[in-house]
Amino acid sequence: MKCTRCKAKAEVHLRAHNAGFCRPCYLEYFRRQVERTIARERMIGADDHVLVAVSGGKDSLALWDVLVGLGYRTTGLYLGLGIGEYSDRSHEKVETFAAARSLPLEVRTLAEQGAGLAVPDVAAATRRAPCAACGAMKRHFFDAAAHEGRFDVLATGHNLDDEAARLLGNVLRWQRDHLARQRPVLEPSHPKFVRKVKPLYLLSEYETAVYAFMRGIDYIVEECPNAEGATQLVYKDALDRLEAASPGTKRAFVKEYVRTIRPVFDTAAARDAPGECEACGMPAFGVLCSFCSLVREVEHKRARRAAAGLDA
Amino acid sequence: MKCTRCKAKAEVHLRAHNAGFCRPCYLEYFRRQVERTIARERMIGADDHVLVAVSGGKDSLALWDVLVGLGYRTTGLYLGLGIGEYSDRSHEKVETFAAARSLPLEVRTLAEQGAGLAVPDVAAATRRAPCAACGAMKRHFFDAAAHEGRFDVLATGHNLDDEAARLLGNVLRWQRDHLARQRPVLEPSHPKFVRKVKPLYLLSEYETAVYAFMRGIDYIVEECPNAEGATQLVYKDALDRLEAASPGTKRAFVKEYVRTIRPVFDTAAARDAPGECEACGMPAFGVLCSFCSLVREVEHKRARRAAAGLDA
Repeated sequence: MKCTRCKAKAEVHLRAHNAGFCRPCYLEYFRRQVERTIARERMIGADDHVLVAVSGGKDSLALWDVLVGLGYRTTGLYLGLGIGEYSDRSHEKVETFAAARSLPLEVRTLAEQGAGLAVPDVAAATRRAPCAACGAMKRHFFDAAAHEGRFDVLATGHNLDDEAARLLGNVLRWQRDHLARQRPVLEPSHPKFVRKVKPLYLLSEYETAVYAFMRGIDYIVEECPNAEGATQLVYKDALDRLEAASPGTKRAFVKEYVRTIRPVFDTAAARDAPGECEACGMPAFGVLCSFCSLVREVEHKRARRAAAGLDA
Repeated sequence: MKCTRCKAKAEVHLRAHNAGFCRPCYLEYFRRQVERTIARERMIGADDHVLVAVSGGKDSLALWDVLVGLGYRTTGLYLGLGIGEYSDRSHEKVETFAAARSLPLEVRTLAEQGAGLAVPDVAAATRRAPCAACGAMKRHFFDAAAHEGRFDVLATGHNLDDEAARLLGNVLRWQRDHLARQRPVLEPSHPKFVRKVKPLYLLSEYETAVYAFMRGIDYIVEECPNAEGATQLVYKDALDRLEAASPGTKRAFVKEYVRTIRPVFDTAAARDAPGECEACGMPAFGVLCSFCSLVREVEHKRARRAAAGLDA
């Protein structure tokens, strides 16, 4: 196959686009896709300071790399989730990436926030699925870091596969409020929030992997050990099969949803503006934000165990 | 496992309902489900004469059997599609079923309507997928038969798997007009139409198969030979995997859609009432109905082949 742009020998074949690219043209194509998405959805202004949430995986490091290449002012944010060796290795990848490019990086860890706040501990103490606990905590720390640091935008590396899987899950259960909020740009609903954007939401996992590989980005390849058996992976598998039978399915599913369907769910999601969490001061719909509720649950559990003489 | 109702030994286990049934209780459960669906959705009035579209497969014969058991006045309608031996065998099954129960049966065949109207011929002549050609023709003949015969309702055997697959396809492409029309009861939009209902739309393929087996219904087991590779089967396979990971997925997907989501798509589907087809007089949105357009295409093609000396 030949490169669709320059007719050199193609290195990548994108079935969903019925296109092939050589290495330089693929990198150009990928950057252009991100650039266009940012412009079309008005994700980032020219003077915005962007906080990029980086996990050490291909998506978030590819995103950071592209944003730097496009000339945006960026700072990385790494959150140590305390998932054993997996977290150690992903932290290393992020540090190496930032150091090699002299990029500013902020690092927080759940463990330093309080005892028992590493993801596995919270999941065990609250009997939540690890992915649910992890999601709530990440959201809190990302929001808090973006606010404290006076950033304008928080960018995450969610790709097309992530968004399609999330959309499929929302559609299978017809969760109207979740459907209403599934969008590539989330404007702040409170002064302590910043805009949240997903510039890779139309690029597949395969496309970001190829980009990271071609750019020589050293990322953590293994999946999070908690992800095994996660519902999200079942959705991804189903979508992979649908995509194989009809290339372009995922992209059309997500793109058409965002473009023409999502607004029909807006009324369902209309709710009052959030107040502020009594414990941490971040926006919250109840007395406590969902992170502080989690923390309370963990503390309560620890106190009970201590009283029963089970902990040191 | 024990029967959820009577504690006898269970013969069937329904994971989606987390229930098991012995044979008598299963038959009772199945009939009740159909009865409740008919009542909840106001599908059939007590005095209605129901035309039941029967293919010879498990779903439509199970439906006919249940409707007769519930005391409805029914007539079967079999449409010979001209799909070789498959059609011959399915015709036999329907005749045997009706004769054994002394039920009135009307039989039409596409071949008797005109030369080249068997499904494989129409598909070849119009270069349509066989399932698309077949769907358009079935719809026409069912509507026409229901109208001519002064029936009140047309009932089809679409089951939960059919409806979930159709919904998944409509959602993956976000076809708003198709989404708006996907409902278990379709009220007539023209005096020549009758109400169309799907009393089995919340019962799975497995459930109708078990019912047919327990009732000793002899049905055609093999799939239509044209179905191989059909997109519908890809959707069914994806849904089977999602169901296996989380039993009840299909039912929640379809039920919640019909109950709370479908109406949001109504405005998209609002279109003028149909006029009448110039050729056959049945309701049509254009000059010709979609069936007569197909027929014209076939005739045109045959005329060209004859002119070129290719046909006898």
